[in-house]
Amino acid sequence: MNLKPIGDRVVIKKLEAEKKTQSGIVLPESAQEAPQYAKVISISEDIEKDEKKKGQISVDDKVIYSKYSGTEVKLDGVEYIIVKFQDILAVVK
Amino acid sequence: MNLKPIGDRVVIKKLEAEKKTQSGIVLPESAQEAPQYAKVISISEDIEKDEKKKGQISVDDKVIYSKYSGTEVKLDGVEYIIVKFQDILAVVK
Amino acid sequence: MNLKPIGDRVVIKKLEAEKKTQSGIVLPESAQEAPQYAKVISISEDIEKDEKKKGQISVDDKVIYSKYSGTEVKLDGVEYIIVKFQDILAVVK
Amino acid sequence: MNLKPIGDRVVIKKLEAEKKTQSGIVLPESAQEAPQYAKVISISEDIEKDEKKKGQISVDDKVIYSKYSGTEVKLDGVEYIIVKFQDILAVVK
Amino acid sequence: MNLKPIGDRVVIKKLEAEKKTQSGIVLPESAQEAPQYAKVISISEDIEKDEKKKGQISVDDKVIYSKYSGTEVKLDGVEYIIVKFQDILAVVK
Amino acid sequence: MNLKPIGDRVVIKKLEAEKKTQSGIVLPESAQEAPQYAKVISISEDIEKDEKKKGQISVDDKVIYSKYSGTEVKLDGVEYIIVKFQDILAVVK
Amino acid sequence: MNLKPIGDRVVIKKLEAEKKTQSGIVLPESAQEAPQYAKVISISEDIEKDEKKKGQISVDDKVIYSKYSGTEVKLDGVEYIIVKFQDILAVVK
Repeated sequence: MNLKPIGDRVVIKKLEAEKKTQSGIVLPESAQEAPQYAKVISISEDIEKDEKKKGQISVDDKVIYSKYSGTEVKLDGVEYIIVKFQDILAVVK
Repeated sequence: MNLKPIGDRVVIKKLEAEKKTQSGIVLPESAQEAPQYAKVISISEDIEKDEKKKGQISVDDKVIYSKYSGTEVKLDGVEYIIVKFQDILAVVK
Repeated sequence: MNLKPIGDRVVIKKLEAEKKTQSGIVLPESAQEAPQYAKVISISEDIEKDEKKKGQISVDDKVIYSKYSGTEVKLDGVEYIIVKFQDILAVVK
Repeated sequence: MNLKPIGDRVVIKKLEAEKKTQSGIVLPESAQEAPQYAKVISISEDIEKDEKKKGQISVDDKVIYSKYSGTEVKLDGVEYIIVKFQDILAVVK
Repeated sequence: MNLKPIGDRVVIKKLEAEKKTQSGIVLPESAQEAPQYAKVISISEDIEKDEKKKGQISVDDKVIYSKYSGTEVKLDGVEYIIVKFQDILAVVK
Repeated sequence: MNLKPIGDRVVIKKLEAEKKTQSGIVLPESAQEAPQYAKVISISEDIEKDEKKKGQISVDDKVIYSKYSGTEVKLDGVEYIIVKFQDILAVVK
Repeated sequence: MNLKPIGDRVVIKKLEAEKKTQSGIVLPESAQEAPQYAKVISISEDIEKDEKKKGQISVDDKVIYSKYSGTEVKLDGVEYIIVKFQDILAVVK
């Protein structure tokens, strides 16, 4: 079983572990939006067909996204989050 | 009798049962939107004629949708939900 | 006397009776919008001239619409409701 | 003296009397908008030059409009209402 | 010294006096917007260059405008009001 | 050091003094927006490249702007305000 | 490790120190938005490909941005802020 996002959406999987490594990413709460660290699992057709968007994120990219957006879904015991493209703030390279 | 959705809408039928299988989908409430699991029953002409949208969902697809959208309608004793295309979050394959 | 809707509007007439038949439509209140069952009486020029919309509803169609939209008007003792096209959720066939 | 509406506006004159005739129009308050019955007095240039709109209402048409829109103006002792085109709900023919 | 409005704006000068003449304009408060009577003093370049708008109002026109919009400015002891084009409801001819 | 505004913005410098001259500008508070009197210091590239906007304001113009918009910045001891083009209401000539 | 912003975003790094120098920038709180002083670290592809935007900010530019926008992210012990292009108010040259 897998999830194919519809419209302008992306399926991501939260990366909890790295938040604990000392030299890794630490994400303090902010007044605006509490960012989160995750891995891209799948991308919608809309984004793949969008000249401007498709080059910006790929499956397996590590991304910062806005926690206050998206919907959590647990599939076969694994938790995924469905977010909109605009809720992906940056790619960590 | 059947329902043909108007505009950018889709008629879906909630799948309660699978929510109880252990390896299946479990959908925790989220601050943003409480997702739901359903089957696509019928799709509007607008979506069928929309190059970008028509390929993304088909009748009988199992989908995740946002519970806080849509209108429940019971037809000949069966309950359906009329939602907008953008409220379909992902297809489960 | 008759009503010709202006702009993106449709004149409908509520169908109370069928709501009571056992095998017919039952419309529970929903948190989003309380749907209603009605018959299409007249359609605006805008809709008749709109390639995407004109094919989707016709006079005499039985439709589900959103109760919280529209304006009730009684003409020669008959009550009609003027709604926008987007408030017609589905056609019952 | 007369009023020429600007932009997407129409000047109308309320028809109180007919609201009292038995076979005429009765307009109950509605949760959405309280409709009113009026006669079209003048139409803006924008509407006269708009292919979609100009054919839909004419001077002297009797129309249903939304009471909660528009501005009342008394000119030479006669009260007029300036409303936007979209606040004209239907023409009574 | 004079005022040249920027963007989609018009400079007007309130006409208090005529509000008192018996056969003139009387402007009751309305739930929507309290109209006012004024004379057009200057018009922005945007409006002069706009095919749809330029023909609709001219300097010295007497207009009805919405009181709850605009900014009052006193220049050399004379009070002017800067309003947007859409706040001019009608021209009195 | 100087400030180059980004996007649809303008840098202005408030003119306090003239507000005190008797024949000059007096700007009473208004329910809508409290206007202010200022001099244009610099204009963004977007505005300079915009056919409609560039001709309307120039560096050194004296302008009326809406006080409730913009951001105050003190640079080398001088206070500037960064406002959007639409917050410039009129040029005083 | 570095951050590549997605969509219409820019990654900046706050410049605390200069806020303390006497002849430098002092940024008082304002009713609208509390401005901040920062250095541009990276710019999204969308902005680099946008004819209007790309020329306006470059990596290493010192900029004024709106504090109440953006998301703070700490990467390898360094704190960055991800803001939208429109939240960059001006470049300090």
